[in-house]
Amino acid sequence: MTDRPLVLSNPRSERVRQVAALGRRAARERSGRFLVEGPQAVRELLRYAPEAVEQVYLTEAAAHRHPGLLPDRGHASPPTGDTVRPRPATRPAPDRGHGPRLAWCTEQVISAMADTGAPQGVVAVAQKVDVPLAQALDAVGVAGFVVVLTHVRDPGNAGTVLRGADAFGASAVLVSDASVDVYNPKVVRATVGSLFHLPVSVGTPVPELLRACRERGIRLLAADGAGGTALPDVDLAGAHAWVMGNEAWGLEPEVLALCDAAVSIPIQRAESLNLAMAATVCLHASGSVREQ
Amino acid sequence: MTDRPLVLSNPRSERVRQVAALGRRAARERSGRFLVEGPQAVRELLRYAPEAVEQVYLTEAAAHRHPGLLPDRGHASPPTGDTVRPRPATRPAPDRGHGPRLAWCTEQVISAMADTGAPQGVVAVAQKVDVPLAQALDAVGVAGFVVVLTHVRDPGNAGTVLRGADAFGASAVLVSDASVDVYNPKVVRATVGSLFHLPVSVGTPVPELLRACRERGIRLLAADGAGGTALPDVDLAGAHAWVMGNEAWGLEPEVLALCDAAVSIPIQRAESLNLAMAATVCLHASGSVREQ
Repeated sequence: MTDRPLVLSNPRSERVRQVAALGRRAARERSGRFLVEGPQAVRELLRYAPEAVEQVYLTEAAAHRHPGLLPDRGHASPPTGDTVRPRPATRPAPDRGHGPRLAWCTEQVISAMADTGAPQGVVAVAQKVDVPLAQALDAVGVAGFVVVLTHVRDPGNAGTVLRGADAFGASAVLVSDASVDVYNPKVVRATVGSLFHLPVSVGTPVPELLRACRERGIRLLAADGAGGTALPDVDLAGAHAWVMGNEAWGLEPEVLALCDAAVSIPIQRAESLNLAMAATVCLHASGSVREQ
Repeated sequence: MTDRPLVLSNPRSERVRQVAALGRRAARERSGRFLVEGPQAVRELLRYAPEAVEQVYLTEAAAHRHPGLLPDRGHASPPTGDTVRPRPATRPAPDRGHGPRLAWCTEQVISAMADTGAPQGVVAVAQKVDVPLAQALDAVGVAGFVVVLTHVRDPGNAGTVLRGADAFGASAVLVSDASVDVYNPKVVRATVGSLFHLPVSVGTPVPELLRACRERGIRLLAADGAGGTALPDVDLAGAHAWVMGNEAWGLEPEVLALCDAAVSIPIQRAESLNLAMAATVCLHASGSVREQ
């Protein structure tokens, strides 16, 4: 084993194939792991969820371009021993005594592992970071707000909503079992690290999600282009949830019926706002109330 | 010629190739025409810019699914004469005495013409709809607002900003010569018709755009994540322009220096908002002030 190459260079190796397989939902569900691609997302992963990191794969060029990716600056050049070595973590890692394992790779290997076009020389494999629903709801308290994704299917939209929830100070994001997988590499990329910043709960059926919110006294606000309550008229001071529907057909009548209000954003022209725009406006409104 | 087939069926014909070529910028610039794909965008084109329509290509199935696409309901089935015939317009078409010409096609022909994956059986060819800069600025008056795209490169972002400008009541959209072509089929699709709803000016260099705004007394507000003025502190009552930068590197220092204020959206966490989110929040804020 000491004669192994210092740098992973075979893009068709079993190991590379196993990492690349995490681009598919089945492999993620089987393994409980997911892919994080690109320097910005990997940096946020290492900073906010170091205990979840299993392995960081990177090229020497990427290590030089993004020195902050390496927990231990003293080892910023490729190792001379094995391809993989434990590293000290920059932040406390509750579940382990050491930091993420690094493996040096060629550009070809990184490209073969990545789902997206341009991982910029670095990908990581991490254990899933979602939390139980009760834990996510605990974060809301009496004056927080959350966003509920009921049937959001587009990875870019889901990622943008997570990013907005993070930016505007939401307490958590609740994703139903009928929405896109938040560990889809396109979602992870679109969140630009927000997936690691706030509690995210996944996999609960919509009625159960709404019931759980209601039991905690969280007011359910349906974001609905045809809603009878205009956004400026909604009291956003107390605990509330923004319930977002599907990109094409919005919220199902049964779901709307379970909400406390159907809220529309006043618009002048245009057919309607798209899901990401509507979520951005609603979350910004909730965040603005809390800033004052 | 009377023996021609009633329905265009050869996806490799010269005519289909000429339409498909409009997916490329060079062909659009040479011809002054662009492609509009899908029932929603074509419907908005026919309603708001009927004089620009040169030809509507559609399948019989699409005509049945979307009867509103046909200006004259009495002719909603494929013609029995030639493949192309003039139709009366639903709305006055200032420049012509008749409505758009229709050509019936097979699904294969529509797919071969379209740039995007799912034109749903209908595409149109139209003359460009942008207006001279002075005309776009005339629409602003003393209390309107506009959005200036300086170096926006992603078609989805440009389309979303156009849609937001439309939704929140902007007077016009000004697109610099360094931004993505608004006639790119992906932009057209992302605007979902907004391109036809409000005056859009294209092709002016950034400094000239900003100078023209300033000469009209339009206050220049740079949307800038690091901006020193917080959005809630900005007076949005008078005429103003939201100046948006590039997705990756924002606004150039020279452009920032030409603006009256650099405005940031207060955020709690997350690195920054993406361009479409920031534009949505800023345009919504400007629209909200005007609604009160």
